[in-house]
Amino acid sequence: METHEMIEKVAGFEDIQDVVAMVPAMRKLPVVEVGEILGTLDETWLPGILEKFTPEQQGLIVSEFPVEKQIVLFQSVSKKRFAPVFINMPSELRADLFQKLTRQEQIAILPFLPKVVREDVIHLASYPPETAGGIMSTDFATVQRDMTCAEALDKVRSDNPSNKTIYYIYVVDDDQLLQGFITLKDLVIATPETPVPTILHDEFAFAYAGEDREEVAKKIEKYDLVAIPVVNKQNQLVGIVTHDEAIEIIRAEHTEDLEKFMGMVPAKEVMNYERTTVWRHFRKRVVWTSSLAVVGLISGIIIHSYEEALSSLIILALYMPMLADTGGNTGSQAATVIVRALALGQVSLKNWFAILFKEARISILMAAALGLIAFGKILFLSWETDVPEGYTLLFLATGISLALSIQVVSSTIIGAGLPMLVKRLGGDPAVAASPAITTVVDITGLLIYFGMATMLFF
Amino acid sequence: METHEMIEKVAGFEDIQDVVAMVPAMRKLPVVEVGEILGTLDETWLPGILEKFTPEQQGLIVSEFPVEKQIVLFQSVSKKRFAPVFINMPSELRADLFQKLTRQEQIAILPFLPKVVREDVIHLASYPPETAGGIMSTDFATVQRDMTCAEALDKVRSDNPSNKTIYYIYVVDDDQLLQGFITLKDLVIATPETPVPTILHDEFAFAYAGEDREEVAKKIEKYDLVAIPVVNKQNQLVGIVTHDEAIEIIRAEHTEDLEKFMGMVPAKEVMNYERTTVWRHFRKRVVWTSSLAVVGLISGIIIHSYEEALSSLIILALYMPMLADTGGNTGSQAATVIVRALALGQVSLKNWFAILFKEARISILMAAALGLIAFGKILFLSWETDVPEGYTLLFLATGISLALSIQVVSSTIIGAGLPMLVKRLGGDPAVAASPAITTVVDITGLLIYFGMATMLFF
Repeated sequence: METHEMIEKVAGFEDIQDVVAMVPAMRKLPVVEVGEILGTLDETWLPGILEKFTPEQQGLIVSEFPVEKQIVLFQSVSKKRFAPVFINMPSELRADLFQKLTRQEQIAILPFLPKVVREDVIHLASYPPETAGGIMSTDFATVQRDMTCAEALDKVRSDNPSNKTIYYIYVVDDDQLLQGFITLKDLVIATPETPVPTILHDEFAFAYAGEDREEVAKKIEKYDLVAIPVVNKQNQLVGIVTHDEAIEIIRAEHTEDLEKFMGMVPAKEVMNYERTTVWRHFRKRVVWTSSLAVVGLISGIIIHSYEEALSSLIILALYMPMLADTGGNTGSQAATVIVRALALGQVSLKNWFAILFKEARISILMAAALGLIAFGKILFLSWETDVPEGYTLLFLATGISLALSIQVVSSTIIGAGLPMLVKRLGGDPAVAASPAITTVVDITGLLIYFGMATMLFF
Repeated sequence: METHEMIEKVAGFEDIQDVVAMVPAMRKLPVVEVGEILGTLDETWLPGILEKFTPEQQGLIVSEFPVEKQIVLFQSVSKKRFAPVFINMPSELRADLFQKLTRQEQIAILPFLPKVVREDVIHLASYPPETAGGIMSTDFATVQRDMTCAEALDKVRSDNPSNKTIYYIYVVDDDQLLQGFITLKDLVIATPETPVPTILHDEFAFAYAGEDREEVAKKIEKYDLVAIPVVNKQNQLVGIVTHDEAIEIIRAEHTEDLEKFMGMVPAKEVMNYERTTVWRHFRKRVVWTSSLAVVGLISGIIIHSYEEALSSLIILALYMPMLADTGGNTGSQAATVIVRALALGQVSLKNWFAILFKEARISILMAAALGLIAFGKILFLSWETDVPEGYTLLFLATGISLALSIQVVSSTIIGAGLPMLVKRLGGDPAVAASPAITTVVDITGLLIYFGMATMLFF
């Protein structure tokens, strides 16, 4: 039976015993799927069903729930009952949940935790969520430098690392200073009497606890790591960040980027569409759009100051939107390309001139193509329009499409330059993406348009 | 010395012996950094420096180069000299390089490869690059179901998996049918006489060789896997896809999405900004922008048909761009939110009505906010404008901002609905994102604007 079939079946049950009857089948499933199935139950049935699993399994299953659901469960059972679940959650998720509890709730659970878990939770919850410390796990294995491989393997075995990531085993000295790591693979393949330093990697990537989590994800990616060690300022090993966290960070960053590109207030966490209220969606979206509407006043003032020109030559009003659209499209494209190239480290600010020169060459090709199309469009659309005394349609069409071509070049260069400028000033280049660019090039576009019109037509 | 310092130093050298002198320092670095440093050398020095490393290291270092650089190296040394490098490359990268060679080059290298490598390369290169088969590696370890843990560990050791990913060890039967997997951790911790089935995971995630690589990345992410097994139609194990490939796929998908959102021809591979020619950048960007310019003809026709209305009430022309911008912004936001929620599996098409209803409620709040701002803007900007006989500014401002509010609601619903429609028809929802939405809501916006104007003002 597939997971989604099980979920549908569970949704139809009217008696908790029907769910209990499915527990043996669930025990065989990967824990993420059990989490999906039980995540659909409400707090009246959930505790009763969870009890059918071992405390270890309960910890892992509850870890698969969204954190809001974990909080509901926390609030609906006694703290004594919740403690074994909490203890068996992976350390980083346990700390995340703890951070989201109220002060009273935090105090209520602490007495039921063993000293080592209590200290671990308080320590991990003290890091800001966007740092390496905020996402790291403390479920790692360590050995000492002066051991043989056989001794190291024995230590790993006896530490009984049920939740631990032991693909890499970290080598520390007596002061917990990180010396390097060995892989479980090398440890297993080495002859038992081999000294640990023989297989030690002592040039290795690591992160500081205060480092930005996106930097940490990039290191995991660059070095193809399963996990990266995290050290404090004294270079003592305090945690690890695993590859699955890296994927989550990259996904979150992806959503954040798209949101910035589309002018929304970006969230550090991926929000769930269905669970987010209408009001919160509104707040997330309205800030940018209304700011842009206010900035749009500048365009309004420019247009107004040419009101007379527009009344006397109405054809100018007709093609104003075409110019704005084209400028917005080409500017956004250039901004996207540059923001992406900066994020992937393909280009550096040092080469700003070479980049702008390249964009200029690209934009001249674009300007030629789009200018020609605009020229054809104007002739086609306005063929039967009455042109005021003293003008010819050919002349007007030439002027307007020339303005459009200049606008394409200028908006491409602005679109490429603005993200670099923002980065140079220490900001995130993605904020200078689509909606901001559109608003800026709207203004420059109008100036080019009316400037050209004044020069040629009046 | 940091890697970038080494790169700068190497760039300044005029004698190959200076680079040779740095080889001992490089040997200590992670291979990815050696790859970065040697990647800056051209083909006159590169072969000489590579020779200072073992064939295993050479294979890994060359694997870090971009594939174009690998091809240059391939072409600049004898095939006999290249063969040991090629043999020591990870299987999936070796196959990628092989796919990019010309038919003649492929034939030239084959005689220098051992039979097992030859078959492996030909087999892997036969899968399309966007499938699980196209990205999978054949460097995996297998054991038999009827072994004990001690026997399994011996087999893993004796297979000497220098390049192999052995965090998971796959269990197959005599016909290579995949039975499940065991983790190296469980294997190490188990007592030697434990039978393999005791620690066997027989409910597990896997991928078919023909499956889309994005689906494969999603599975690795969902189940937090270090690697996922790939089977053929007969359920025989043919390869694995590792977590670092998943990250690469997610990054590529990210770029692809942004490109679609910004109206560029999306590439399956992440293009390098600097290495891509001006002409190719142009082609990538011009297709969409010029198509949109052509579709813009429809807006042009609508505007033209209201030419008289615009001349008699010039204020309508002044606020046409404001309406278009606001519609484009709100429509793009809604499209982004829905495309993302669909991609992350947060919403399903089955709930299309609930989604549109939610968007409608959000858009009414947005419409109220943006309508009020527009109303204020018009009063502020046009306060001193002469209004034609029979109209009051208050009445005109009310009409225009009412049209804008209706446009906000309609473009939000279109922005949310169009991606779902495209998905329903089997397309990629992301193509119905920003530029396409802007063009569509431009058209509906003009119809709303002039419809409202005709109703109220004429």
